[in-house]
Amino acid sequence: MKIAILGTGTVGQTLAAKLDSIGHDVTIGTRDPAETLARDAKDAYGNPPYKVWAAAHPRIRLDTLANAAAHGETILNALSGAGSLPGLELAGEANLDGKILLDIANPLDFSNGMPPSLFVSNTDSLGEQIQKRFPKTRIVKALNTVSAHLMVDPGQLAGGDHTMFVSGDDPAARRQVTSWLTEWFGWRDVIELGDISTARGTEQLLPLWVRTWGALKTPMFSFRVVR
Amino acid sequence: MKIAILGTGTVGQTLAAKLDSIGHDVTIGTRDPAETLARDAKDAYGNPPYKVWAAAHPRIRLDTLANAAAHGETILNALSGAGSLPGLELAGEANLDGKILLDIANPLDFSNGMPPSLFVSNTDSLGEQIQKRFPKTRIVKALNTVSAHLMVDPGQLAGGDHTMFVSGDDPAARRQVTSWLTEWFGWRDVIELGDISTARGTEQLLPLWVRTWGALKTPMFSFRVVR
Repeated sequence: MKIAILGTGTVGQTLAAKLDSIGHDVTIGTRDPAETLARDAKDAYGNPPYKVWAAAHPRIRLDTLANAAAHGETILNALSGAGSLPGLELAGEANLDGKILLDIANPLDFSNGMPPSLFVSNTDSLGEQIQKRFPKTRIVKALNTVSAHLMVDPGQLAGGDHTMFVSGDDPAARRQVTSWLTEWFGWRDVIELGDISTARGTEQLLPLWVRTWGALKTPMFSFRVVR
Repeated sequence: MKIAILGTGTVGQTLAAKLDSIGHDVTIGTRDPAETLARDAKDAYGNPPYKVWAAAHPRIRLDTLANAAAHGETILNALSGAGSLPGLELAGEANLDGKILLDIANPLDFSNGMPPSLFVSNTDSLGEQIQKRFPKTRIVKALNTVSAHLMVDPGQLAGGDHTMFVSGDDPAARRQVTSWLTEWFGWRDVIELGDISTARGTEQLLPLWVRTWGALKTPMFSFRVVR
């Protein structure tokens, strides 16, 4: 399938490498491809610059957000929380209409220091804001509750015996994403929570996620719904 | 041990019955004991009136919030979220000073309909508000992420293979509560998250908890941190 991944960070790279490796036609979208490729410095997390990763993944194209979105039959939002709505504007409504957009972003707010708070929560969510702005796109929130390496390979932790949540207004789109999570990445325990307002639940898991990370000193954990 | 449980609802009753059954000296605190005992109707959840439960648990006394708090060497806050700060005022600062207060309440806000939102979240928490108001009391937040029956008997679900979180400013008080969770109730996997601000994490798990309840159609589930 033709897949657009919006965002060149660790999440975007990790998803792109996995989807490319299983035969999908992946284009990554970024605001300014020339600027992204010109970077020489490591990013804020100490990762090598994008061009180093790109050289190791020659099949994966880099293009503008609009060209990537036009390419994709489905879209994965791997932009930062704060960058999501502006980035999706640049991707262009016409390039998103009618498609499933798998939204992985969390509305993390670093302005109050660490650990981050959320810039939207409680009575609204980033998933809902995106759905409201792009009413013809089928927004499905998922994968936002684990680190990038677990998103694409849940089996590396406890044999995959942990839970992923899916939120979205369109039941058929939710089921499609649930199938993709299993087929692409091997997720075995997926709970469809309901409409996109249920993203309030998974986005508000992040405040517990970051504190559990602090207590365990590793991001290699995940939540399992024991029932 | 002499234990005060503030709140006569399902959480208070369930904790009181368990602690009484293992030999503790339990007093339940309520605003107006005569009014509580005079109730004839079922509560909002369909549970029988307090006096029916009390007749089956004759060792457990009912008293005012202040008298109960004076009795308790340790205090369990099983009041509603909205009722917690007003109820603790009635319990009285002098009756709380120097004691561990195990805070189980969640700041649920039902004013926007179901599922509830939170009346404090993101950059503050109910646990922090209580600690700030009662600086000489050692507030420890725990048990607020599972239904009442699982609080006192985690082993009935998956043999107890799920996780409880503990937050509090005083490390010795956190460790004490962690020990009680194991000794009193059989909790085997307890994560000490850190200071009371980490209660923002567990209180914000509630929005996911209520939606998971909606999806699973049962409150008999719990979260396990798989690592």
